[in-house]
Amino acid sequence: MFIDNLIDRIKLLQNPTVAGLDPKLEYLPHCIIDEAVGLFGKTFKAAGYAISKFNMQVIDVLCDIVPAIKPQFAYYEMYGLDGLSALYETVSYAKQKGMLVIGDGKRNDIGSTAKAYSCAYLGKTDLFGIKSPCMDVDALTVNPYLGIDGIQPFIEDCLTYGKGIFVLVKTSNPSSGQLQDIKINETAIFEFIARLVDDWSDGHEGRYGYGPVGAVVGATYPHQAIKVRDMMSKSYILIPGYGAQGGTAEDCLPSFKKDRLGGLINASRSLVFAYGTKRWADRYDGENYTTIIRDEAVRMKLEIIDAFGGESF
Amino acid sequence: MFIDNLIDRIKLLQNPTVAGLDPKLEYLPHCIIDEAVGLFGKTFKAAGYAISKFNMQVIDVLCDIVPAIKPQFAYYEMYGLDGLSALYETVSYAKQKGMLVIGDGKRNDIGSTAKAYSCAYLGKTDLFGIKSPCMDVDALTVNPYLGIDGIQPFIEDCLTYGKGIFVLVKTSNPSSGQLQDIKINETAIFEFIARLVDDWSDGHEGRYGYGPVGAVVGATYPHQAIKVRDMMSKSYILIPGYGAQGGTAEDCLPSFKKDRLGGLINASRSLVFAYGTKRWADRYDGENYTTIIRDEAVRMKLEIIDAFGGESF
Repeated sequence: MFIDNLIDRIKLLQNPTVAGLDPKLEYLPHCIIDEAVGLFGKTFKAAGYAISKFNMQVIDVLCDIVPAIKPQFAYYEMYGLDGLSALYETVSYAKQKGMLVIGDGKRNDIGSTAKAYSCAYLGKTDLFGIKSPCMDVDALTVNPYLGIDGIQPFIEDCLTYGKGIFVLVKTSNPSSGQLQDIKINETAIFEFIARLVDDWSDGHEGRYGYGPVGAVVGATYPHQAIKVRDMMSKSYILIPGYGAQGGTAEDCLPSFKKDRLGGLINASRSLVFAYGTKRWADRYDGENYTTIIRDEAVRMKLEIIDAFGGESF
Repeated sequence: MFIDNLIDRIKLLQNPTVAGLDPKLEYLPHCIIDEAVGLFGKTFKAAGYAISKFNMQVIDVLCDIVPAIKPQFAYYEMYGLDGLSALYETVSYAKQKGMLVIGDGKRNDIGSTAKAYSCAYLGKTDLFGIKSPCMDVDALTVNPYLGIDGIQPFIEDCLTYGKGIFVLVKTSNPSSGQLQDIKINETAIFEFIARLVDDWSDGHEGRYGYGPVGAVVGATYPHQAIKVRDMMSKSYILIPGYGAQGGTAEDCLPSFKKDRLGGLINASRSLVFAYGTKRWADRYDGENYTTIIRDEAVRMKLEIIDAFGGESF
């Protein structure tokens, strides 16, 4: 099952991180952009080509360091069918290279429609009577606003196909509190959802004691993460907000349990576009972006190990 | 702008409804399925072909009766790239036939990513410096769990490009109350969101006094619809849950204002797959599904006019 495979890889690589693949064209290396535009002009087709090529290069240099990728669907959907084609290629290539894939789609709908989304990403689609895998990622992010019957179809496919989901609990953005921090008798909405999330894994724990239903809790809210972690004994936490959004390795610690498991730190821009950051500006020569991405992945891994006092996962 | 165009068409066609295009293969007419499988085998390509062909036939018979279509993205995503290709073809064909298109994607994310989703559906994508429309629907459904900075990018594109959004307020599914009905000092979460929705349209009202930010309120919750309607003076309500989910024309009335505007009733399965329902079973001969869909659209329109006491919109 996904959560066991994820923890196996975290332990093997000694790295509790995931690389967020959010390939906005503006951030891609000039050499790839020039090649794509040279081949296909300033078209969606060129965008798809550039994204696919870049992602495969990133996967090549990260697959023996980082356990998983997390493509954010929005950055593919914005490039139309060509962007979505690049997403399918990226997912397939990452799996081939042994990486786990967490689809970041934050999908949500009423039961029958949530089932359709789950077929698209976790389960199988009924194709004229034949059950056929579609995107077939390892895990998906989902939004809890519709309650349990919008989540249940995903959980069923998690159990049938050994997949995972991460439910939005406390998101990393500035206005996340507008709804998520509202309190009912001392309990904030995000805490209420956290309790549900942990319940939804009940009885489905894997080898390490963690279940298929995890939570999303932003690194930008470490105090809330402490509360969520206390409430959830068997749920993994996917932690966005590290790096470009301002979260540090220390900010991520509250999402981990005493077993040094339970947390998966996502880095998107700060890792995958490291060659465009101040930290690496002096070393970037326009061509050596894959080396810099790899070096940043190692640096980030060591920073996290350091924040944990140097012990192994 | 979208909301003015929608009301113009509702008045022209005397019909405040939208056809939900949720093309699960199991519901499609046998003759289309047989043709698709004959051409392409039991493949995703055959699924895309069947969906596209069926949707175009539906649009042909509804475009002079029903103001808009609402494709539910999940039912295209579950058929992979071929399904998404059918979605793009459907959107393009409906617009060509003069119908408005409401993309039902319930998208949501942090600000920068919400912006990417908005580029995909409402705004324009930056393609190597050229702003290019992508799917370019007229309106999109969005989820409010992340608060205002997950909604703001969509609103900006609504204002720039004359589009609309419908924010989930009180959804039609059985467990919608699990989160949405939680009360803080007598105010339920869905009421809290309803207030925000109406505020977000402030100062952007069109010719009929309605703004670009609307709400989703299920026909299955008429009592909650009364409260929401009272709180929202300038927001249109998209009303799912009519027909197959059990909502009646009467259940939809509370979402309308005294001006007989303010509500848009969605029918998906009960309309588009009418030939598979008890009501039309005796007339369906395996071939005449488009006639039945058209007749059901007229029947539904007259039922709604009747529920309003026969007056015009």
